[in-house]
Amino acid sequence: MSEFSLIYTHFKHATAKHKNTVLGIGDDCAISRIPSDCELISCVDTLVAGRHFVFETSPHAIGFKSVAVNLSDLASMGATPYAILLGLSLPDNNNEWLKEFAQGISDICKKFNVELIGGDTTKSDILTISITALGFVKKGQAIRRDNAKIGDVICVSGNIGTASLALSYILGESGHCKYANALDDLNDELKNALQYPIPQIELGQKLVGFAHSMIDISDGLGQDLGHILKNSGMGAKLYLDNIPCIDELNALPFDKKYQHILNGGDDYQLCFTMSKESFEKFNILHPNLIYPIGEIVEKQGVELFFDNQQVDFEIKGWEHF
Amino acid sequence: MSEFSLIYTHFKHATAKHKNTVLGIGDDCAISRIPSDCELISCVDTLVAGRHFVFETSPHAIGFKSVAVNLSDLASMGATPYAILLGLSLPDNNNEWLKEFAQGISDICKKFNVELIGGDTTKSDILTISITALGFVKKGQAIRRDNAKIGDVICVSGNIGTASLALSYILGESGHCKYANALDDLNDELKNALQYPIPQIELGQKLVGFAHSMIDISDGLGQDLGHILKNSGMGAKLYLDNIPCIDELNALPFDKKYQHILNGGDDYQLCFTMSKESFEKFNILHPNLIYPIGEIVEKQGVELFFDNQQVDFEIKGWEHF
Repeated sequence: MSEFSLIYTHFKHATAKHKNTVLGIGDDCAISRIPSDCELISCVDTLVAGRHFVFETSPHAIGFKSVAVNLSDLASMGATPYAILLGLSLPDNNNEWLKEFAQGISDICKKFNVELIGGDTTKSDILTISITALGFVKKGQAIRRDNAKIGDVICVSGNIGTASLALSYILGESGHCKYANALDDLNDELKNALQYPIPQIELGQKLVGFAHSMIDISDGLGQDLGHILKNSGMGAKLYLDNIPCIDELNALPFDKKYQHILNGGDDYQLCFTMSKESFEKFNILHPNLIYPIGEIVEKQGVELFFDNQQVDFEIKGWEHF
Repeated sequence: MSEFSLIYTHFKHATAKHKNTVLGIGDDCAISRIPSDCELISCVDTLVAGRHFVFETSPHAIGFKSVAVNLSDLASMGATPYAILLGLSLPDNNNEWLKEFAQGISDICKKFNVELIGGDTTKSDILTISITALGFVKKGQAIRRDNAKIGDVICVSGNIGTASLALSYILGESGHCKYANALDDLNDELKNALQYPIPQIELGQKLVGFAHSMIDISDGLGQDLGHILKNSGMGAKLYLDNIPCIDELNALPFDKKYQHILNGGDDYQLCFTMSKESFEKFNILHPNLIYPIGEIVEKQGVELFFDNQQVDFEIKGWEHF
């Protein structure tokens, strides 16, 4: 089947037309209108089979997660998602696989009013999905990594370490599950954290005007907070007991627990900083959405505290190489 | 080495900052200003080692061509290129390879004032490069595939079939050259057509206001013209003797010659249609830039003529699967 038919059959009607799209899939390029009071926000993330998801992952979950991790990057700028472009390399032109994969993409795109406006499919021995996400943010309002201020409260948007714990239950050798149905044996909370992460789009938008700096936690809370600190020229005190996590993590020994929480990755929660005043104001407006876990200090590096005692823990997140 | 260091070292300064970029590489997303009188043009193309280029291709040429094929898609809309995002999957974090690859990207980006604003690198057994290109075009001015009119002159921007001929000289088994230095033995014209295609950006922009429809020739003139015809609901008469090509192709038997020209692909020339009046006007303003090769007719399908005789030739371009 030609690329044209392939894209047309499975992806052309996978998503609804967005009001800002002049021309979507079906030409050399897409044509889009950008709202005149907005800037364009763009990012790219690539997922490789056996590396970013176990080979046993369903095509639906692969499609869903490939988009989710990109929308999470948009969320971390406070952006409103608009569209994605899909670069898909796959071993076989398997109709059933493509149908389910497209459905996964469709499901998350509908949830966040995102249109698939462009795509390229090619044959390759390794399933690789590269997605570019586009979004909008009011001029000058995007929340960056490099603007944390001394005294800022460091917050996260929810439970940390869940996906990492789930992965530790299922991961065997060479990107495969320990056994064929390992994924099925996870409870829903763990399964969803690993396969169906929900990007924090709405919260990201609410934080515009409040947060000084923000990042999404994809490579581990420790490493990702480290990017905020490095780019802002700041340091942090982190209160480990304050980091929200699921009960199953609380049942683990200290080292195992905080290995998942600080170095685990794949969380797709947001980590952000804001002044104490903004933190109080935000909590009145939107109670119980954000969790304070530390504060920004002038002295560079990260000091960790547990039960009011300073503790040591090596921060070493996901390595892309 | 972490992804952050990898991107930072090789790609952060590979391209010059574009005046429309608020924030480039180094955050979760890039932030861009879109000119208020323009629409955003976007596309994605993926290149896989051994499939879109022989394994023996230099990293410099791979970097250059990966960008070129995307800019060619922008050219086919009449757009002005602005930026690219790079999704790079590669087997090794090889410093020398990355340096040369980044230089190839740098060279073509500088030529067309394009900035690399975002990237993601990941480990994979197969070198795969997925690039999203962004450009601008004045509102409502983009040249699409679906607007060819009866009586339009069909034109191309230059020699067709050169890259296909070059590939036939070098291609051996499984994406490798016939022998180690086969690429080196090509003359410069053939080597450049295969490895360093130049996207027809300037011509594409000149054609705004003249061309009714346009596409870039990546999958073969026959197949790509077919997209214009199908999307416009039209047919064509094509005068094979009028299609420009290099002398080496003229020396081949008819079938071999037109196999390269009609079905070869990888040309990155433009194919477009315009009224006879526009054609004459354009040629006065810009002499010797465009080549008439046929005309748009109401009757669907393509009729081929050679030496004023109708001829048969199977049109069957590049298959992505």
